[in-house]
Amino acid sequence: METYEIFRDLAIIILAAKFMGIVAKKCKAPMVVGEIIAGLIVGPCLFDWVISSDYIAKMAEIGVILIMFSAGLETNLKELKKSGLIAFLVACAGVFVPFVGGAILYMAFYGWSAWGTEGFFKALFIGSIMTATSVGITVECLREMGFLKGKIGQTILSAAIIDDVIGIIVLTFVIGFKDPSSNTLLVVNNMVVFFAASLVGGYLLYRIMQKVDARYPHSRRIPIIGLGICFAMAYCAEKYFGIADITGAYVAGIILCNIRDAEYIDRKVSINNYMFFGPIFFVTIGLKTNLRELDTSMLWFSVCFVLVAMLTKVIGCGLMSKVCGIKGIDCIKVGVGMMTRGEVALIITQKGLALGIIDSSYFTAVILLIIVSSILVPILLKYLYTKAPDPVEPAAQST
Amino acid sequence: METYEIFRDLAIIILAAKFMGIVAKKCKAPMVVGEIIAGLIVGPCLFDWVISSDYIAKMAEIGVILIMFSAGLETNLKELKKSGLIAFLVACAGVFVPFVGGAILYMAFYGWSAWGTEGFFKALFIGSIMTATSVGITVECLREMGFLKGKIGQTILSAAIIDDVIGIIVLTFVIGFKDPSSNTLLVVNNMVVFFAASLVGGYLLYRIMQKVDARYPHSRRIPIIGLGICFAMAYCAEKYFGIADITGAYVAGIILCNIRDAEYIDRKVSINNYMFFGPIFFVTIGLKTNLRELDTSMLWFSVCFVLVAMLTKVIGCGLMSKVCGIKGIDCIKVGVGMMTRGEVALIITQKGLALGIIDSSYFTAVILLIIVSSILVPILLKYLYTKAPDPVEPAAQST
Repeated sequence: METYEIFRDLAIIILAAKFMGIVAKKCKAPMVVGEIIAGLIVGPCLFDWVISSDYIAKMAEIGVILIMFSAGLETNLKELKKSGLIAFLVACAGVFVPFVGGAILYMAFYGWSAWGTEGFFKALFIGSIMTATSVGITVECLREMGFLKGKIGQTILSAAIIDDVIGIIVLTFVIGFKDPSSNTLLVVNNMVVFFAASLVGGYLLYRIMQKVDARYPHSRRIPIIGLGICFAMAYCAEKYFGIADITGAYVAGIILCNIRDAEYIDRKVSINNYMFFGPIFFVTIGLKTNLRELDTSMLWFSVCFVLVAMLTKVIGCGLMSKVCGIKGIDCIKVGVGMMTRGEVALIITQKGLALGIIDSSYFTAVILLIIVSSILVPILLKYLYTKAPDPVEPAAQST
Repeated sequence: METYEIFRDLAIIILAAKFMGIVAKKCKAPMVVGEIIAGLIVGPCLFDWVISSDYIAKMAEIGVILIMFSAGLETNLKELKKSGLIAFLVACAGVFVPFVGGAILYMAFYGWSAWGTEGFFKALFIGSIMTATSVGITVECLREMGFLKGKIGQTILSAAIIDDVIGIIVLTFVIGFKDPSSNTLLVVNNMVVFFAASLVGGYLLYRIMQKVDARYPHSRRIPIIGLGICFAMAYCAEKYFGIADITGAYVAGIILCNIRDAEYIDRKVSINNYMFFGPIFFVTIGLKTNLRELDTSMLWFSVCFVLVAMLTKVIGCGLMSKVCGIKGIDCIKVGVGMMTRGEVALIITQKGLALGIIDSSYFTAVILLIIVSSILVPILLKYLYTKAPDPVEPAAQST
């Protein structure tokens, strides 16, 4: 391929993604969905203008790393400490129930596999796709209605952040065991050493960056060094610990999320992301999803996948919040608020594809889940809040 | 190569480039020089940590396109119209004399070639590397001394902008003729059609973007569509007209330089550039430059190249400004101010390398030129202005 030919692909991807993103937003769907549809349109599904070349795939991979880095940066550790036991327990249930539900769903479709077999880990992987809540749409919706700062809103928000962290840990374990011959002890050992090293090294990095930041606030070097740390940790995680690069990038984000310029780094990284790498990643998913190859069995699986993913979240989070003393309809609010899925589910699927655990046909199920959940959740939340408005809200918001 | 391995290269490149860029700035040298030296350090010249893979080369190519797009966006067409005949004539002389000087230098070293032969076009290419002024350092220096808004300062600034446009046209012609068998008429025809199409299509694009901009000012879609246009024009220029992709990107920048959000687009593109693609491009140059292979003949050529490139600018611009009625020492100020070279010289060299016109050993000469000119020009300007301060200045600046 001549070098200039990449500009053709880039122009098509960037413009199509933006256009369809705008269309999606007009239809009140998440922009991500529009960008994926752009990939379906320009890819082998329809016009066949762009082929997913090795080059584009690597750009998409950078996009994935940047999205995870951003997610880490946006974690508010102080809020997390304050958020308390209820949010933590809700998050645990919100990871555990969908995880088990997803695994059972897979085995129900493709046969029961014994502990430790390949099929068993595939099932676990399908489960781990279901874990990560993407709370963006819920937040938008609650903010619009003016209920974000209420007790339920804050519980959802905190639980969704903790849920990300737990989800990443679960994923890291599942990927660690992907090889049926893998030594359990070694995997656990790697994991423990990685998190210990991240804790110690991360604290050192954090102190150094804090000093650099204090001396040169808002300078270009801050986001650039941050980016360097992100790439370095993504590489080291995968190379030396056998842990997913996305985990490394996410942890890099968490390490830096408390320095004063964290939001500044996030802003600069986000610009790279929304102009370049993000659209490329989402369009690539569309390119890989060949709807023509979709058969009835996969279609049924996808429908069940969506149902299980949404119900397990509502059941898991709803029941746990009931156990924690949240009353009546408010439990359902929490459950519904946690139902939305987004980028992270796609990223986990992509990781499974790259590792050869699952094949690209599962994208259909995940995309369907994102679309359905992000259309349904705002409608359900509006209905629930109209029926029973948050009583604490007006006071909390006036402060 | 495993995907995660690119993160290693990216981390090393980004961090090394930033570090050496800061060191260069501390030494009052341009940051670009620091970034190139970073490439020498991490590349085969010294530590051999990073190899210039196909992947990195393509990222660098995107950097080149973005730099040219930025250069186009920063062109102020209104200023250009006002700048008048003197600046135009100075720019013409500042392109023509170095162009001829460079070609003669090459032939003096490697033998005289007849019109139309391969050697002849190589010589012309070396000439065209010498044409583009990089006025950044001069501007910094004049601003610091408070003479930027004086008559001489403004003449230099305008001439440097026009000089870019003329330089790009010259380069486009030279590349068009790179193939000794190329049909002169066809090349000229392509060129004319391209610029005509850019004029008509560009005007349409400009009007459309102006409308989009008026309706959605400062929205994300503005820089994204701009970027899409940039890539599309880079591709079309090369694919359909046989014109360098960098010309396409530059013209895309000029088309958009007059919309209200031009500066906004430039800012967003620049963030992508300074965080990612820019450093990768400059480091790549360092990676390609193998100083161990440098022989005495190339060393001599480089020294002469630097001398000719600087003297031809002073002579060309200085004499022309004398012809235009600028008096005495002020002519030398104009000549010296136009002497600095920078990114664009590297980009042209890179283009010649990609097209197989010259080999990578010429980078040494260009890098040397950038270093020497950017160290010498501020010293000379300070000396000239101390000896004969600009008399118009104080009045001009107080307004």
